[in-house]
Amino acid sequence: MKKIIVQKFGGTSVADTDKIKNVAKTVIREKNNGNDVVVVVSAMGHTTDHLVKMAHDINPNPSSREMDMLLSTGECVSIALLTMAIQAQGYKAVSFNASQIGILTENIHSKARIVDIKTEKLKKNLEAGNIIVVAGFQGVTEDGEITTLGRGGSDTSAVALAAALNAERCDIYTDVEGVYTTDPRVVPNASRLDIVSYEEMLELAHAGANVLHPRSVETAKQYSVPLRVRSSFNLDNMGTLIIGVDEMEINKPVTGVAADSSQVRIVVCEVPDTPGEAATLFSSLAKENVSVDMIIQSYARKASQTNDIAFTINKEDLPKALDVLEDVKVRLNAADVKIDENISKVSIIGAGMIDRPGIASTMFQTLADSNINIKMISTSEIKISCLINKEDASKAVKKLHEVFSLGCDEIADVKGTLPDV
Amino acid sequence: MKKIIVQKFGGTSVADTDKIKNVAKTVIREKNNGNDVVVVVSAMGHTTDHLVKMAHDINPNPSSREMDMLLSTGECVSIALLTMAIQAQGYKAVSFNASQIGILTENIHSKARIVDIKTEKLKKNLEAGNIIVVAGFQGVTEDGEITTLGRGGSDTSAVALAAALNAERCDIYTDVEGVYTTDPRVVPNASRLDIVSYEEMLELAHAGANVLHPRSVETAKQYSVPLRVRSSFNLDNMGTLIIGVDEMEINKPVTGVAADSSQVRIVVCEVPDTPGEAATLFSSLAKENVSVDMIIQSYARKASQTNDIAFTINKEDLPKALDVLEDVKVRLNAADVKIDENISKVSIIGAGMIDRPGIASTMFQTLADSNINIKMISTSEIKISCLINKEDASKAVKKLHEVFSLGCDEIADVKGTLPDV
Repeated sequence: MKKIIVQKFGGTSVADTDKIKNVAKTVIREKNNGNDVVVVVSAMGHTTDHLVKMAHDINPNPSSREMDMLLSTGECVSIALLTMAIQAQGYKAVSFNASQIGILTENIHSKARIVDIKTEKLKKNLEAGNIIVVAGFQGVTEDGEITTLGRGGSDTSAVALAAALNAERCDIYTDVEGVYTTDPRVVPNASRLDIVSYEEMLELAHAGANVLHPRSVETAKQYSVPLRVRSSFNLDNMGTLIIGVDEMEINKPVTGVAADSSQVRIVVCEVPDTPGEAATLFSSLAKENVSVDMIIQSYARKASQTNDIAFTINKEDLPKALDVLEDVKVRLNAADVKIDENISKVSIIGAGMIDRPGIASTMFQTLADSNINIKMISTSEIKISCLINKEDASKAVKKLHEVFSLGCDEIADVKGTLPDV
Repeated sequence: MKKIIVQKFGGTSVADTDKIKNVAKTVIREKNNGNDVVVVVSAMGHTTDHLVKMAHDINPNPSSREMDMLLSTGECVSIALLTMAIQAQGYKAVSFNASQIGILTENIHSKARIVDIKTEKLKKNLEAGNIIVVAGFQGVTEDGEITTLGRGGSDTSAVALAAALNAERCDIYTDVEGVYTTDPRVVPNASRLDIVSYEEMLELAHAGANVLHPRSVETAKQYSVPLRVRSSFNLDNMGTLIIGVDEMEINKPVTGVAADSSQVRIVVCEVPDTPGEAATLFSSLAKENVSVDMIIQSYARKASQTNDIAFTINKEDLPKALDVLEDVKVRLNAADVKIDENISKVSIIGAGMIDRPGIASTMFQTLADSNINIKMISTSEIKISCLINKEDASKAVKKLHEVFSLGCDEIADVKGTLPDV
């Protein structure tokens, strides 16, 4: 049996017919390495934006079922064209949409999760010598309803296919050169990481490094699929390999620095200190699908017997959260609810920080030396995050990147750092 | 059980979002008449041309399987947008592609024939009160391969769905006002026919009247589905109803006049008069899928004991035919093969000409009076065709239209007469 490599190309990589021909060459290169190749592609460039605009022209609130029907066409155009491009080079290739393969998802439109992938048709076609080109981002329910996987969907399709096929590796081709120690737009000498663990990548992804969607990294981790993030436009660069932390040698305590300005801080002030008030608050938010990130409950103030509860959520969930809080404020008899949108979460990430004392204090001291006030702190085994004022975020990232010696001698050649999903 | 009306809207009827909103109104109007409605749509305006252009940029000779994958996306965009437009008006609607319904075809790409349509999902959704929007032009094989139906495919989808659902009627909405006595671009006072038989419509279609593809008319005839051709843009006009000849009252011997300039005449000269020479010639052509229309074999010339065999074929089959003829000429020991591209076939059509003598002679006399030379003649029960020089075609159509009193007092308001498939 040959080794199977799954490749994924995002929308910018297949934005026009010339780029599609280029992708065909990259695919064939892998086939000529002696591997079986399964390629996952997104919709061409701005196709999705164009379709969404037409939908909103017609219906300001289109049903998610019909949006899925509409948007899933984008990837079907890409797979047909890429297959033709591969065939034009004299190679056998065949395209499949998600319904044809059986990429089964939950019966939820616009953000379905994959529950199973049938491999029979894929294996039969690989055995027949075909390169297989699969539509990313889409799935199908048991009833034949067309679904889409939401943001980062094509990455998730690729990783899930790699897992189902027991592939050697899943290569995510994108318009960046790999995963960097931090955003090269902020720190020009940010260095590309040759290797990073799933856990670190997840923290980097959650922390705002937009290279891969967390869901695809989680799936890769769950099924131990080695992932490689690399540039479609520079094949000499091997990009970044993402694997299990137990398979890698750890040299540095800190792998990367990330800033995330998409959150907002909410403080519920002077909540009477009775058992269960935090449970009331956060279960009410959970019921409305509001994800909470950092949480701090201050010590009860002896005099008033009240607590302040501070937490952060994603900005786009703020309207839903405010609805919930209006009600909860009355039930908890809280004095006030304060909103702070002028925040940024800066994080240092590194599998090597486990059992290395002093990393946290170095971070706090660095911020203090730069006159940056820390509003909240949260930690995990491989991450320390500080909530600071938004205007301090760039300075904080630069200083931390320097202090933990993450830079390289060169200036990164950044062609693009926008998400490529 | 409510009556089911199938409606079909072509590419020009759904060319942009405003036109799609308009189509939604026409659909809802039928629903408000108390009928169940199934709508078949084509791809938006120039979508197909755009997709074909990209395909040819990538591969000058794209595989028909991948072309089907590519082109079938166009109708899926239309069904999703039209469904959203109907929902925006507060009506229940749901879209399905051919795979979801089970519009089963032969396993032939780019020109598959429908072999069966599953009605379970359609009936269930109609019972639930939904307007159903179906992707035209496409089908699926038993193995889940996506196929397309070729030219006129969406008309055929609509008629086949109407047959499968035992629908009351199939309304073909297009950019012309109905079926005319002749091409209104040639004869400005051509009149719209209120009613025409399948048989006449077939001859009109074959004879070059581009309103409906013959295949859809044949399917309607086979299953006795009443067809109505009407304008998307003028709902006050009821268009043309197409039904069985036994259901209509026949007033006039001639219903319409048509000219077809898409043929070419071939004469195989001086073929020795031995049994089977015609069989050799035409079976060789049939083997290469070259359809022959008119055939004339001249009387054997006593002196040389040879025949001339003349026939017409479609222009696009000429290269294939010439390949065949090069070989056949040698085998038959024919003197020469002559090609005449400067021809046009002019036909008069009418179910009323059966048993009415004098129609043919009136036609020949009219052409003679206009100094138009007849090169070949062929007849069927309801049609008489004459092959003439191409430059005489317009004059012939005008004269015949006048002689058989087909005109009306008004000038037709022709918005468009191009095929709308």
